[in-house]
Amino acid sequence: MPETNRQVLLQRRPNGMPAPEDFAIVDAPLPEPGEGQVLLRGIYLSLDPYMRGRISGQRSYAKPTELGDVIEGRVVGQVARSRHYGFKEGDYAFGGYGWQTYSAVDGRGLTKLDPAAAPMSTALGILGMPGLTAYVGLKTIGQPKAGEIVVVSAASGAVGAVAGQLAKREGCRVVGIAGGADKCRYVTDELGFDACLDHRRELGAALDAACPKGIDVYFENVGGAVQRAVYPRLNDFGRMIMCGMISEYNDVEPQPGPSLVAAVRKRLRIQGFIVSDHAASRPEYLAMAAPLVRSGAIKYREDIVDGIDNAPAAFIGLLQGKNFGKLIVKLGADPTR
Amino acid sequence: MPETNRQVLLQRRPNGMPAPEDFAIVDAPLPEPGEGQVLLRGIYLSLDPYMRGRISGQRSYAKPTELGDVIEGRVVGQVARSRHYGFKEGDYAFGGYGWQTYSAVDGRGLTKLDPAAAPMSTALGILGMPGLTAYVGLKTIGQPKAGEIVVVSAASGAVGAVAGQLAKREGCRVVGIAGGADKCRYVTDELGFDACLDHRRELGAALDAACPKGIDVYFENVGGAVQRAVYPRLNDFGRMIMCGMISEYNDVEPQPGPSLVAAVRKRLRIQGFIVSDHAASRPEYLAMAAPLVRSGAIKYREDIVDGIDNAPAAFIGLLQGKNFGKLIVKLGADPTR
Repeated sequence: MPETNRQVLLQRRPNGMPAPEDFAIVDAPLPEPGEGQVLLRGIYLSLDPYMRGRISGQRSYAKPTELGDVIEGRVVGQVARSRHYGFKEGDYAFGGYGWQTYSAVDGRGLTKLDPAAAPMSTALGILGMPGLTAYVGLKTIGQPKAGEIVVVSAASGAVGAVAGQLAKREGCRVVGIAGGADKCRYVTDELGFDACLDHRRELGAALDAACPKGIDVYFENVGGAVQRAVYPRLNDFGRMIMCGMISEYNDVEPQPGPSLVAAVRKRLRIQGFIVSDHAASRPEYLAMAAPLVRSGAIKYREDIVDGIDNAPAAFIGLLQGKNFGKLIVKLGADPTR
Repeated sequence: MPETNRQVLLQRRPNGMPAPEDFAIVDAPLPEPGEGQVLLRGIYLSLDPYMRGRISGQRSYAKPTELGDVIEGRVVGQVARSRHYGFKEGDYAFGGYGWQTYSAVDGRGLTKLDPAAAPMSTALGILGMPGLTAYVGLKTIGQPKAGEIVVVSAASGAVGAVAGQLAKREGCRVVGIAGGADKCRYVTDELGFDACLDHRRELGAALDAACPKGIDVYFENVGGAVQRAVYPRLNDFGRMIMCGMISEYNDVEPQPGPSLVAAVRKRLRIQGFIVSDHAASRPEYLAMAAPLVRSGAIKYREDIVDGIDNAPAAFIGLLQGKNFGKLIVKLGADPTR
């Protein structure tokens, strides 16, 4: 076991797009697990768009990360020392914390993982928070019916890829939006969406061609120009699942949104949600999704970056749409693959 | 019976705020009721904000009024001739059509009124479409719970006055927004809202003072600057009942709306509705509201303008917020009061 814990701290609050200098990479002493705690050696760290909100310092649904703090993040790892009766050295678990190679966490916040059932990294993606996000957004807000037209932005991303595949399974026509030809090809050829549009091209005309009867459900992950193209094409009783607006998270001044006159005329439902309010749906989601992931009926893709020192650059790339699939940082050796 | 039917026709589509020259007042021959029809002598004509959409010619949830057509409107009147077995001369009924003194309409579209049960004009307001609108918006979208903070714009108007009184009956703290001290005084002193803010004054600070714990439900009738003041003060899980945005109906270019990033962070629900989708709720609303109106537990106010020739000016005044209470045009004598 090394004697140090490598960490990424918030050094400066980003102004607009985060810069490498907003982060500090330091070596801290290994944390000491207290009674009931576990020292977890991190293997995989999840990088997710919500982190941009945490480091901004603005009031939101969760406490912001303070300057000098380790940046928040979900970690899969292996138990290095245990002071909790439920875990022993060598166990694999989900529930480590933060952009760091080791964390001491309460055993009751950890979930044991069986690497034989599914690759451990899936606990951060398709079988974790992003997958549940897609499920909850569709189920509680989108409620797509067979034959309806569903548009999903960031369609190759961790949430969008699941949202679209689940909507396909409901019998919808599903049109993705993604950045670039490679991602679009993946979305149609691998994920099985009916079409995928490149938002770097003229999106309005492409949406008209792909959705000649308009759009019934929009799973919104992106905002900005993509939202401005989709919104006026929503049908009467259209639903807009407000999951995220990553393209606007770095705006210093908020962009105006769409005129809500159309929300009246078309009886739109525009509704936001945060997956942490829906933890109770996790067992139901996993019972449905895990067998489909194992059988290959639902597909996923991971974009794994090696080493915690690369986390800041990978995170900046995520905000720029450079990742391709669920973005994960490999913190240390994975003995299971 | 006169020999002519006085009508207001759409002469020109308004560009921005309607002008008197957009309307033509003509004398047409009395219509002949066909088999199964009734000739109704109009007594009261309802003027409502939705009419602005109809005469604009834009695609919407209802067919636009064509140039040269009688402008759409709901009318209460008295049967002048009947060719329908269910009605006889002298009956009072709701279901006449348009900005005109007489209309020939199918008997099956008419509802007989008992003037002893409630003043006939209430079928156009508190016990008609506007009342049902308030009820449906609160029930299906707002779902206010006791103790929640409800803000209602156009609070002295036909819909807002009912919405606020119904929310009070649910145990909410209800804050109205209206134009001018007279309307605000009426909203608090007569309708019993907890507070009422004059949107002609600095609304943001007034909202902060009246709603120090934020806003849970916003019943939106106005849009524009009022919406811009209310939206950022919505609480987590806030609901925005998108009923109307009268202040923007004359805009030639749509105004931008609020950034929807807040809809994600705060899990807002922003939802539009059109009362005609909810006709099935009418009996339930009337069963609840009619006794309360009769007992005086729910109050209403009518702004009655005399004579069809004054309809265009009254409608323009409605769009400018000049009416005070449910706006009605008296088309002819009311023998019952």
